[in-house]
Amino acid sequence: MGTQNTQGTEQRTILVIGIGAGDPDHLTLQAVKAIRRADVFFVVGKGADKSALTDLRHQMLEEHAEAPYRVVEVEDPSRNRRPMDRSAYTSTIEDWRARRGDLFERLMLDELAPGQTGAFLVWGDPSLYDSTLGILADIETRGRVSAAVEVVPGITSVSTLAARHRIPLNQVGRPVHITPARRLPEVGRRDDGDIVVMLDGGESFTQVEGEGLWIYWGAYLGTPDELLVAGPLDEVRDRIRQVRSEARARHGWIMDTYLLRNTDGPAQPSAPSDPA
Amino acid sequence: MGTQNTQGTEQRTILVIGIGAGDPDHLTLQAVKAIRRADVFFVVGKGADKSALTDLRHQMLEEHAEAPYRVVEVEDPSRNRRPMDRSAYTSTIEDWRARRGDLFERLMLDELAPGQTGAFLVWGDPSLYDSTLGILADIETRGRVSAAVEVVPGITSVSTLAARHRIPLNQVGRPVHITPARRLPEVGRRDDGDIVVMLDGGESFTQVEGEGLWIYWGAYLGTPDELLVAGPLDEVRDRIRQVRSEARARHGWIMDTYLLRNTDGPAQPSAPSDPA
Ligand SMILES: C[S@@+](CC[C@H](N)C(=O)[O-])C[C@H]1O[C@@H](n2cnc3c(N)ncnc32)[C@H](O)[C@@H]1O
Ligand SMILES: C[S@@+](CC[C@H](N)C(=O)[O-])C[C@H]1O[C@@H](n2cnc3c(N)ncnc32)[C@H](O)[C@@H]1O
Repeated sequence: MGTQNTQGTEQRTILVIGIGAGDPDHLTLQAVKAIRRADVFFVVGKGADKSALTDLRHQMLEEHAEAPYRVVEVEDPSRNRRPMDRSAYTSTIEDWRARRGDLFERLMLDELAPGQTGAFLVWGDPSLYDSTLGILADIETRGRVSAAVEVVPGITSVSTLAARHRIPLNQVGRPVHITPARRLPEVGRRDDGDIVVMLDGGESFTQVEGEGLWIYWGAYLGTPDELLVAGPLDEVRDRIRQVRSEARARHGWIMDTYLLRNTDGPAQPSAPSDPA
Repeated sequence: MGTQNTQGTEQRTILVIGIGAGDPDHLTLQAVKAIRRADVFFVVGKGADKSALTDLRHQMLEEHAEAPYRVVEVEDPSRNRRPMDRSAYTSTIEDWRARRGDLFERLMLDELAPGQTGAFLVWGDPSLYDSTLGILADIETRGRVSAAVEVVPGITSVSTLAARHRIPLNQVGRPVHITPARRLPEVGRRDDGDIVVMLDGGESFTQVEGEGLWIYWGAYLGTPDELLVAGPLDEVRDRIRQVRSEARARHGWIMDTYLLRNTDGPAQPSAPSDPA
């Protein structure tokens, strides 16, 4: 990854571009410049129910890419979404990642001539719960095709959640924990830090003891369909469940994130209604 | 904050704009649009040694703000940088924050007419270890001046660190912990998650047992002076200390962040050289 090509042929370049988590204006100037540089865009589809996510990418290309550009759309290898335990989860992910590696490797070999630049438009920021960089590292290890990888950071759904609620993620001097929902039972409430929950397929906030917790919840953040609810967990839990299931039924899918603020840790300097 | 004004006068607006952590191209399109809307920019100075940070703000305004615009520069109330224990730390911060509240309140009353829009250009993202939103909430509570607050998320130094090292922050299915250096002894190594350390005045990475840890370190991220070092903590610790102290002597100040990757947690799926 990023090593100089010593075989005399020109190096391929792969741009991994964070595009923000829903608002087209969350593109950075650097992302716009990167989009202008690419010859080919790889758009990995997630199935019909999430076509909104690929629509946004097409919209961004229409607005910012330099014609003529080429878009290669591919179907994401499907994976089992609800394995039961952690080792099954890890091996399911590993298997899916290997198949994604095959796919990306083929794209790089078949769709990108040496010297050309290909781009992946990554939801949010490439560093947060996204497999693209890991897969590109796997491909580098396999050694069949090499490319200089450049990463353009993006606005995360977490920053968007905080911005829309106009809150900081952390309390003064305290940590913040970001966790996939499946790890919430272990990560939660061990200290005075706040907790951001992502990848929640099953309303994990309903299984958390609400005492001393304030929730800031957001769905479809940054989009015209954005939903926000905030309050003491015990008071707003049922409202979030209702809003969430109605929205999910309406759209056919949902993407939500929330912050659980620990309001009674040992060093709490201010009242819960002043969450800063 | 954000409430409708019912007294017949026009509402003031305050834009809290994340500007990224060093690279002017990390501004988002939304931030550029917000900068164009503002009548007055409040630039809070941090003393001569960090003037690079205010220089970037001035550069951004020259490039993006609509003339005529006004800049009000103020000196940040100084604070004791190294109190000893956590309660002393919290009260020092609280005191400093109250004085910042007085300052911001005065700016809003004296420098912003009703109906006008003022903007704070916040380093990185306003949600991460930044006091601006908390101070604006304090001012709202005091009730002497009210404003509609809008927050524009920014690229964090954390996303920039990951992008420059071309790594994800998390390992598959695991949590990420973000902590101020002073809390690292408690937050570190309690689970298989990775740890991002910020606000490190004293090379806290030298006090961490390196076994099983990989460090990705970055200073002056996104700027022409950027420094990056990565490797097993035990192997690169001394190099980082040296690079860090030389840079600090050269610049007169340093801003650094690092990720500690836990390579031997129970669910580790891949080798340390493939950190995804
Ligand atoms: C596979 S992760 C990708 C995260 C992404 N890389 C980022 O930086 O936000 C997907 C998860 O991110 C969160 N997410 C992404 N976009 C979101 C949005 N627009 N609104 C709410 N949550 C979102 C949800 O928790 C979702 O389950
Ligand atoms: C007061 S916090 C503000 C963080 C900021 N709001 C953000 O989103 O990155 C300052 C800390 O952020 C980190 N930081 C900010 N900018 C940085 C940069 N350009 N390079 C390295 N670290 C940076 C350092 O850990 C520093 O101590």
